[in-house]
Amino acid sequence: MSVKPILFEDNVLKMIDQRLLPNEEVWLEYTDYKAVAEAIVTMVVRGAPAIGVAAAFGVAFGARDIFAASFDEFRREFDAVCAVLAATRPTAVNLFWAIDRMKRCAQAHADLAGADLKERLLAEALEIAAEDERINRAMGAHGQVLFADGARILTHCNAGALATGGYGTALGVIRAAVEAGKKISVYADETRPWLQGARLTTWELHKDGIPVTLICDNMAGYLMSKGEIDGVIVGADRIAANGDTANKIGTYSVAILAKEHNIPFYVAAPISTIDLTLSDGSLIPIEERGHDEVTHCGGRRIAPAGIAVRNPAFDVTPARYISAIITEHGLARGDFNTDLAALCAKRPA
Amino acid sequence: MSVKPILFEDNVLKMIDQRLLPNEEVWLEYTDYKAVAEAIVTMVVRGAPAIGVAAAFGVAFGARDIFAASFDEFRREFDAVCAVLAATRPTAVNLFWAIDRMKRCAQAHADLAGADLKERLLAEALEIAAEDERINRAMGAHGQVLFADGARILTHCNAGALATGGYGTALGVIRAAVEAGKKISVYADETRPWLQGARLTTWELHKDGIPVTLICDNMAGYLMSKGEIDGVIVGADRIAANGDTANKIGTYSVAILAKEHNIPFYVAAPISTIDLTLSDGSLIPIEERGHDEVTHCGGRRIAPAGIAVRNPAFDVTPARYISAIITEHGLARGDFNTDLAALCAKRPA
Repeated sequence: MSVKPILFEDNVLKMIDQRLLPNEEVWLEYTDYKAVAEAIVTMVVRGAPAIGVAAAFGVAFGARDIFAASFDEFRREFDAVCAVLAATRPTAVNLFWAIDRMKRCAQAHADLAGADLKERLLAEALEIAAEDERINRAMGAHGQVLFADGARILTHCNAGALATGGYGTALGVIRAAVEAGKKISVYADETRPWLQGARLTTWELHKDGIPVTLICDNMAGYLMSKGEIDGVIVGADRIAANGDTANKIGTYSVAILAKEHNIPFYVAAPISTIDLTLSDGSLIPIEERGHDEVTHCGGRRIAPAGIAVRNPAFDVTPARYISAIITEHGLARGDFNTDLAALCAKRPA
Repeated sequence: MSVKPILFEDNVLKMIDQRLLPNEEVWLEYTDYKAVAEAIVTMVVRGAPAIGVAAAFGVAFGARDIFAASFDEFRREFDAVCAVLAATRPTAVNLFWAIDRMKRCAQAHADLAGADLKERLLAEALEIAAEDERINRAMGAHGQVLFADGARILTHCNAGALATGGYGTALGVIRAAVEAGKKISVYADETRPWLQGARLTTWELHKDGIPVTLICDNMAGYLMSKGEIDGVIVGADRIAANGDTANKIGTYSVAILAKEHNIPFYVAAPISTIDLTLSDGSLIPIEERGHDEVTHCGGRRIAPAGIAVRNPAFDVTPARYISAIITEHGLARGDFNTDLAALCAKRPA
């Protein structure tokens, strides 16, 4: 039973503070859209699908607090709420996907009375959350066949239950393989600077009894050269029409290492992560975050003051390094342009 | 004027505690060989050439405290001292090189009276220290021609003044390029788990006014893909006869990334780092260090208890990824077996 990082109980959104894991398990409570936006910016909640789920609740909260005399007036304020949530983080497309879905929901129910419209929007957010876990389980079923019994799988960052509504994308595929009776062991890159691998991936896999070994990001190549890695699986923040995939910084390097060692490299992501409006990955905006994340670790300064720092939060892995993209509608492999378009076409209207 | 991490003053060996940099500059004092051995194990002093220099002083201290009636008796105790120092760290060959040189010095002066022999051994340690900086400056002169004006150079770990008797190997080449009037900027990989790049490389380059930008280890591939890196230079802990090079964990991955982006990858190391007794890098012993280095950062636990951890301290970069090896006797490039043997043959007897 994997953890769920986002709960909605008694009209309160509860999110586990992912900044404090694994040392402390603190649940924060939200009832206000601006606070949800702040939680996304400060990474209380992170992971592309989880950001989408949180943003949907943020939109529902914002809608609830609008007092408007007409739908048009409601819609103007509602769009302003959506704009605040959309401005939180630029790379993961699930954020924009979830906000767009909430907008479509509002528009589709423009004829409802204010209270009913607000209730419908909250129901949509709840549906996005519930759907996310179902999607991950479908992805797991499609993807787990790629892993043999006994496989030693490397993952980067956290594309687990904590990054989603539950179960996980990349770690969902691993969970599905384990549930299918396979003995799987996982190597987790620690994933500096935010240490999602060290803090989150190890934590949730260890809770589930799945063997996990922590390594520093710079050790993956060594283990590959020693024949200790059979496959790599990661999540995604945005996938372009041609299969180029934005994911946590370092994913690109891992993909090159995998190619050099003839190790398959898989991406697991829901259809909502695919952005067919972008022809290739060069068009995906890459967030650069603050310098303190790099100059500090574990709350302590690790570098001298006065030096320059770079902190790109994501990178883009060209499709040629990707063996397959695993979605809830099946696998894309080979010609990603064709396959991804076909998988997206299966998306419910 | 680059920092010197190892000083010998008033019969006391003084070493800057590299575990505390850059937050504190603490100099520790040594007069006893066991304490020097402990300083090498605990990484008060680190970096292949610096370990060699420290070990030479350790041998001299051990010799000084031997009370023996004959050279044979002296030699037995002396060999025991050398064995303690040789057991500190397995990968860097400079340690064994320095100890062997001290042994040869003792044997060559077997006819001296005890006090004179001890004085001669201390003089040899002082010569090893002084020679190391001269060697680095020669290496700089040979290597700096490889860098164009304006070059943006990535380095991994710390192969700087702090890793040597002074000036540095890889960073010595960068210093020589700067002294030759070139505008050079450096990207420093932070180099988990010990953070030699974040803590030491940035510190010593910033002190010298050489522009340095800190990145996490997993960001190098991204910067290469953006065309922001023109070359890579690293040090070495041991180089096999065929050019395969053991260096700090992560070096192998950086070399693969450099190859994938057609960026030259250079190794700078003194002749004392070349181990012609090993035909290839698979024979180089790789130290695995304690798990706490990985599960903790900045003194704070960053991973849950109970998980497995790997912590190889070094990896081996096959010669095929190396554009040139820079030594104090010149460059090896192309056929490393031939070139390295020729460069070593220039070594004074």
